[in-house]
Amino acid sequence: MLVGLGGNNGTTFLASVLANKNNLEFYSKNFKGLKKANYYGSVTQSSTIKLGINPETNEDVYIPFNEILPFVNPNDFVVSGWDINNSNCSEAMQRACVLEYDLQSKLKDYMKDVTPLKSIYYPDFIAINQNERANNVINRGTNDLSLENLSKGKWSHVEHIRNDIRNFKNENNLDKVIVLWTANTERYSVIENGINDTADNLINSIKNDHAEVSPSTIFAVASILEGVPYINGSPQNTFVPGVIELAEREHSFIAGDDFKSGQTKMKSVLAQFLVDAGIKPLSIASYNHLGNNDGYNLSSPMQFKSKEISKRGVCDDMIESNQILFNDKVGKTIDHCIVIKYMNAVGDSKVAMDEYYSELMLGGHNRISIHNVCEDSLLATPLIIDLLVMTEFCTRVTYKKLDGADATKKEFEPFYPVLTLLSYWLKAPLTRPGFKAINGLMKQRAALENFMRLLIGLPPLDELRFEERLL
Amino acid sequence: MLVGLGGNNGTTFLASVLANKNNLEFYSKNFKGLKKANYYGSVTQSSTIKLGINPETNEDVYIPFNEILPFVNPNDFVVSGWDINNSNCSEAMQRACVLEYDLQSKLKDYMKDVTPLKSIYYPDFIAINQNERANNVINRGTNDLSLENLSKGKWSHVEHIRNDIRNFKNENNLDKVIVLWTANTERYSVIENGINDTADNLINSIKNDHAEVSPSTIFAVASILEGVPYINGSPQNTFVPGVIELAEREHSFIAGDDFKSGQTKMKSVLAQFLVDAGIKPLSIASYNHLGNNDGYNLSSPMQFKSKEISKRGVCDDMIESNQILFNDKVGKTIDHCIVIKYMNAVGDSKVAMDEYYSELMLGGHNRISIHNVCEDSLLATPLIIDLLVMTEFCTRVTYKKLDGADATKKEFEPFYPVLTLLSYWLKAPLTRPGFKAINGLMKQRAALENFMRLLIGLPPLDELRFEERLL
Amino acid sequence: MLVGLGGNNGTTFLASVLANKNNLEFYSKNFKGLKKANYYGSVTQSSTIKLGINPETNEDVYIPFNEILPFVNPNDFVVSGWDINNSNCSEAMQRACVLEYDLQSKLKDYMKDVTPLKSIYYPDFIAINQNERANNVINRGTNDLSLENLSKGKWSHVEHIRNDIRNFKNENNLDKVIVLWTANTERYSVIENGINDTADNLINSIKNDHAEVSPSTIFAVASILEGVPYINGSPQNTFVPGVIELAEREHSFIAGDDFKSGQTKMKSVLAQFLVDAGIKPLSIASYNHLGNNDGYNLSSPMQFKSKEISKRGVCDDMIESNQILFNDKVGKTIDHCIVIKYMNAVGDSKVAMDEYYSELMLGGHNRISIHNVCEDSLLATPLIIDLLVMTEFCTRVTYKKLDGADATKKEFEPFYPVLTLLSYWLKAPLTRPGFKAINGLMKQRAALENFMRLLIGLPPLDELRFEERLL
Amino acid sequence: MLVGLGGNNGTTFLASVLANKNNLEFYSKNFKGLKKANYYGSVTQSSTIKLGINPETNEDVYIPFNEILPFVNPNDFVVSGWDINNSNCSEAMQRACVLEYDLQSKLKDYMKDVTPLKSIYYPDFIAINQNERANNVINRGTNDLSLENLSKGKWSHVEHIRNDIRNFKNENNLDKVIVLWTANTERYSVIENGINDTADNLINSIKNDHAEVSPSTIFAVASILEGVPYINGSPQNTFVPGVIELAEREHSFIAGDDFKSGQTKMKSVLAQFLVDAGIKPLSIASYNHLGNNDGYNLSSPMQFKSKEISKRGVCDDMIESNQILFNDKVGKTIDHCIVIKYMNAVGDSKVAMDEYYSELMLGGHNRISIHNVCEDSLLATPLIIDLLVMTEFCTRVTYKKLDGADATKKEFEPFYPVLTLLSYWLKAPLTRPGFKAINGLMKQRAALENFMRLLIGLPPLDELRFEERLL
Repeated sequence: MLVGLGGNNGTTFLASVLANKNNLEFYSKNFKGLKKANYYGSVTQSSTIKLGINPETNEDVYIPFNEILPFVNPNDFVVSGWDINNSNCSEAMQRACVLEYDLQSKLKDYMKDVTPLKSIYYPDFIAINQNERANNVINRGTNDLSLENLSKGKWSHVEHIRNDIRNFKNENNLDKVIVLWTANTERYSVIENGINDTADNLINSIKNDHAEVSPSTIFAVASILEGVPYINGSPQNTFVPGVIELAEREHSFIAGDDFKSGQTKMKSVLAQFLVDAGIKPLSIASYNHLGNNDGYNLSSPMQFKSKEISKRGVCDDMIESNQILFNDKVGKTIDHCIVIKYMNAVGDSKVAMDEYYSELMLGGHNRISIHNVCEDSLLATPLIIDLLVMTEFCTRVTYKKLDGADATKKEFEPFYPVLTLLSYWLKAPLTRPGFKAINGLMKQRAALENFMRLLIGLPPLDELRFEERLL
Repeated sequence: MLVGLGGNNGTTFLASVLANKNNLEFYSKNFKGLKKANYYGSVTQSSTIKLGINPETNEDVYIPFNEILPFVNPNDFVVSGWDINNSNCSEAMQRACVLEYDLQSKLKDYMKDVTPLKSIYYPDFIAINQNERANNVINRGTNDLSLENLSKGKWSHVEHIRNDIRNFKNENNLDKVIVLWTANTERYSVIENGINDTADNLINSIKNDHAEVSPSTIFAVASILEGVPYINGSPQNTFVPGVIELAEREHSFIAGDDFKSGQTKMKSVLAQFLVDAGIKPLSIASYNHLGNNDGYNLSSPMQFKSKEISKRGVCDDMIESNQILFNDKVGKTIDHCIVIKYMNAVGDSKVAMDEYYSELMLGGHNRISIHNVCEDSLLATPLIIDLLVMTEFCTRVTYKKLDGADATKKEFEPFYPVLTLLSYWLKAPLTRPGFKAINGLMKQRAALENFMRLLIGLPPLDELRFEERLL
Repeated sequence: MLVGLGGNNGTTFLASVLANKNNLEFYSKNFKGLKKANYYGSVTQSSTIKLGINPETNEDVYIPFNEILPFVNPNDFVVSGWDINNSNCSEAMQRACVLEYDLQSKLKDYMKDVTPLKSIYYPDFIAINQNERANNVINRGTNDLSLENLSKGKWSHVEHIRNDIRNFKNENNLDKVIVLWTANTERYSVIENGINDTADNLINSIKNDHAEVSPSTIFAVASILEGVPYINGSPQNTFVPGVIELAEREHSFIAGDDFKSGQTKMKSVLAQFLVDAGIKPLSIASYNHLGNNDGYNLSSPMQFKSKEISKRGVCDDMIESNQILFNDKVGKTIDHCIVIKYMNAVGDSKVAMDEYYSELMLGGHNRISIHNVCEDSLLATPLIIDLLVMTEFCTRVTYKKLDGADATKKEFEPFYPVLTLLSYWLKAPLTRPGFKAINGLMKQRAALENFMRLLIGLPPLDELRFEERLL
Repeated sequence: MLVGLGGNNGTTFLASVLANKNNLEFYSKNFKGLKKANYYGSVTQSSTIKLGINPETNEDVYIPFNEILPFVNPNDFVVSGWDINNSNCSEAMQRACVLEYDLQSKLKDYMKDVTPLKSIYYPDFIAINQNERANNVINRGTNDLSLENLSKGKWSHVEHIRNDIRNFKNENNLDKVIVLWTANTERYSVIENGINDTADNLINSIKNDHAEVSPSTIFAVASILEGVPYINGSPQNTFVPGVIELAEREHSFIAGDDFKSGQTKMKSVLAQFLVDAGIKPLSIASYNHLGNNDGYNLSSPMQFKSKEISKRGVCDDMIESNQILFNDKVGKTIDHCIVIKYMNAVGDSKVAMDEYYSELMLGGHNRISIHNVCEDSLLATPLIIDLLVMTEFCTRVTYKKLDGADATKKEFEPFYPVLTLLSYWLKAPLTRPGFKAINGLMKQRAALENFMRLLIGLPPLDELRFEERLL
């Protein structure tokens, strides 16, 4: 169940599942002949894991990621969700301008029967320009789009959402439901003692219609209380301390924040690459423009602020990791600017322009300039698939420690509720309280691979290759 | 001892050692105040290795690479070498236009006393345009620069080089000598049965002045016979099968080929990044231009050919690793073009312009365009330092297997002679016969880190972070 | 009548005329709602000319280019042509992958009835890889694709083409026919005394089936002998001296060479911009890749050579124009490299990557790097329209000099046969013998505008704006 | 006399005059051998004008711009000016990090004796971060940097500046003085009736210390009252209506606003190029970052606002010129964003990253991405030279109309006080009231060339080339 089902990501996600499930094929000016639906861009569906070295050929052996262990197949997903706009998913797909026109034509009939459930709209959390879309919101007399009216009855919203989840599960006879936020970026909620610092205070604040309880927090609380995993694909601080405590208390899984699809993902690779090579990045300028509704919402300063915070931290752990390059004498940080502009003309083709300016040996410099044209929703959708596949998988993993005090326990235990194993797909990984985020993509990938390997009894990949290197 | 000591890399290497050893400081228009000499760009001198997680703070703990184990300090290097041009290193440094002018001024007096030894020049192996530089070559009557004259007496050249090595070692009372080729790219030698396929045949061919024995092979053979490690920083096939057999026979270390400093290094990261993300690169266009003597030599087609082969293979192991993206139905390979042009105006500031065009989900595309201005020699010099530091270290590593047939052996054994652990710094890693090259930079890095960790008794880095992820 | 009617340019040209004539509208993922057919990119159809300053508002007054004088409307074109491949234009359009899929669907029925006439194929003039397309060629027994067979009877080819032109004109009851080459780039013909240096020698050589007479020269000669203008949109030297003399003798118009659509056009603006600003370009690196059949043909070295020559000259007149920046002391020329690579994956979306490196005051530098994704045929097609519109117009312009010896002449005279007024659209403008080409785009534009103005009695645009500047 | 003499432009300007006057030569890592001082980037000193066609060779004939008419030689400039910081010009040059280190060394002795006069500092007009530099300001007790103290006595500031001008002229026995603002960008002044709408109101406001009278307006008023031309090289609205009226009343020359050196200049060429070609620009994204003091000041929002306004208008006249591409149906404007970020690391090497996204025929698109590394002050300094040379020249041009009512006048008249002929060098050309700005660089250039030609009796350049085109 997606929050923001009618948005560009939401409809593209639904379309990708339907197109693959039904083996659709389509034409476009960009390639000869028919193109088959696929899941490119999904780590779980389109990438491989190294198993080891074939002792006969000395070659590395790889296996598709989703064959190493029993994962859910995204073709088996049943999709629903909420949206503040009431367009059915066929109309919303056409509005999105993401998919090839011929594919849209072939999907229309599949998409038109899915219509978003009514969603929660507290106007001051997203840009004022979203007002024009908000015609499908939960509240008495939804023609009244005033903040006062819409923000009334927050606890009833929690119950409304819980009810939606239960109904969906029952009506479709499902094993499991996961809720994922791919709706508009909200402004940050103010963190305040007594308001959202503990689970109990948060629940009280909801019941008192406190102004700092955001729609996304309502969805998170509802999901946790239903025991349904909740993933935050946008940058806002949905997971105020009270939400994390609630998730711990209810043993319910959460993960976030903010899909890591494009510029930041590449930055986490390139900046790491430089620092690992002993080269000192001096400045990173990151400019973006996009013309979809995400960009339209982010053209508002408070929403942009959430995004900027999410994107800014990506180099922090690299800087801390290298005190030769980043110390008091030679400069402790990287000049880093992030700009996002709404440019209607470019539509969903998000453009990222980055410049990395670095210091080399003996006063030399290196300058890397990148122009990256991403199709925003086609990059984000496979991340949604991966997050859902991996979250579902994580709910089935349990363990027992063989040593220490826990060794005598009878029961197997589940993961800690904050699923940091999903950090690979998230720009500003939510961590367990007391831990720092790991942003390096390669470390995140290593974690995934080594965890998969562990579950099938293989040691971590070490690349020592003694077969070749020793006599 | 560098072959090509008077070239841009050679003089910059010498300058970097002298500037650091003597704590030089210098001015430039590019920064305020004085800049101290440093070894930026060197993995061994300026990067760190993760040791583990501090159990009290939950933070990752890093240590400088060169403090994890006892490495040689490059400040202690004694530098000599050969060059076909007789300019002393101060003149050569000024010709190179690599270092800031003020640093050149401060280095002049240190550099002027180092003058290259006479080198080997067989004119048909490098571009004809190098003729004008060749005034410092080994042979009777060096005024006669004809191929016939210069290619006579190849075995005597082997002995001449061996003698140079011995003299240098003795005169400076050195522990160890390493020979590294950073001279002009040669054309490929033809591999021919009976000529260079075995150690014995190769030695015979040298004695018979066979036309397909290149200068670099002469240097390699001389080094091996002296028991001195030999590293090839250029792309040519110095290591014909006969050289590898000779190294095995003499238990002498070799490594190559071709410094991986700029475009290819980044490609090995970016292409891997895409494939790992399940995105299918369709084409990679790689254009370069540079104006130093390396570029001048490469403007000749046969020398460029060597370079192209070296640069071309970098994606091969990625393609083979993912049969979801690269199979008969969707296309088994990546369109890949490599161009290098000599543009005198840009000097040592090599420009790389790359375009990555990839396929996303459902017929979408991603287009990444990169413009990268590298200071060629300032990027290559730290690689030379790393290769020397690591090679020296590898000569001191020995092992004994605890299980299997070898377990009863008394003696510790050295590495296999082809040092593939150095692949991180090499574009087209020379492998042990029967093995395929690993080009992925992250794998190469993992190999280095995990090997260092192993030697101090730490397990491989697995990033599992159970501290955070389990209850 | 286009030579190469079934190519990407040919079918796109036909499609653009049909789509505009029939007011077609179509969908695409790239924009919301229906897009109307238009002639964007055509100077004659989509740009304006300044008439002067409105004395009441002090504002500049502009008029559409095609309204200043009576031009032909491209919607009234009747299109035919030749191609070595026999696909009808609907099939060829689909093969081209140029137009939006929905527009292709709507055009199919209009396009399918146009089928190319048989063309001339002398295999050694174009790349060997074009052989597979050549199934629609003039000659006895066209199953025999040998050079010997196909190159026989060149004079009969002239007559065959003349006959095609006459038939087309009569059957469609046309006022005028223009022939334009938009087929494959040919290799250069060798210019040889006695062979193609005079009109008579050339005609003899055709009659003798001389090997250096290219297909394009056959088309040019046939057109001239029919009194029909002939325009060369490719870089080869169709216009050997004998052709120019023949055009002069027959008073028939010719123009060329090579459509100036993308990289070169922009270079003629940017390099001029720099030099006009007193900035000294030191090097220009121009890299291209494309995946259409033009690129496939140009992957052959001799055909690329023709292209390179055509692209190389563009800066020559700028260099000559400024002896302050380009003299013996500071360097007389610009380092300039041109590379074209065939990359199947990018299709008709030609990519141009350029770097301009320039010298500023006091040893400073400026570096401009450009990445330009052009849709090759959508840029070239409007040029074809402009060339045809302007050529048709030029055939109707006559003049009489009012002074000098000619003043007493009764008759009005036409333009000199080489139509250099068309240089704006041509990369390597063919000039009158004894004149140098003008490559500067602004000069070429000024010529067009001032000529139009002259014909309606207006003085040249001088931008003096005395209205504003004097008291 | 420069306002902002101690800034990057000010010191580079002084250095360029001194280096050229004294024929200095210097070393740098970027080129072999000594580099001579030059005036590259100056239109008047380093570009040429076409005179016509040589009738014997048919070749275009060019002459250096500064030889066509008697211009002042910048080597003869005597330089002084004001700055809010008291560093002498040698110290300021070193702080600027603009010139090659060796050139700085050679200039030090020439520069150190020039020290800026005390300047005017009204703190709320420039960024608060400039406070730390302000140690050289006119006012009683300059240790008191409060707004209240510094903004007192504005009319006395006018008189102080007038006195400075007179003293400088007398002491150096000069023919003429020109004042040019190259200091910090100020915030916009509010235009208000009764305050700055007429000359008299403005003078009253100055006498009353009105808060909306900026330092730059004080300098402009002082210059006008001294009869000395005043040029505004920054974007703020120095020229409030009252200043323009004052200039008219006093027959004193003014020109502005904002040096057009880099991104905007190129945009005025490229956007024009597209529109002239009938291509429709849909969006232009312009990102900049720089690390000099100009950037530091612009990091403040109100100062950036002035800059943004100045940069934004550049496409307006193009859009208005083409109603085929820009009309109600297809979209009347271009999405246009402008961003400037302060990135300390890049220093004076300003980076401009632009993307032009345009619509081609039949729904196609063109995407041009540009990365431009400019040395900010080395590009701006030649513009200062050109503005001074041309302004000085304009003060010597007078005319008499031969027809109309003025024909009987005895006296020759000077130019109208707003020198729009200088628009070529200015981003947001100040116009005569009632006229719109002309931003197209080619039109601005044509105005200059045709005016020069007119003065030596040549007709406008028309490029008709009848020599070649008629029989």
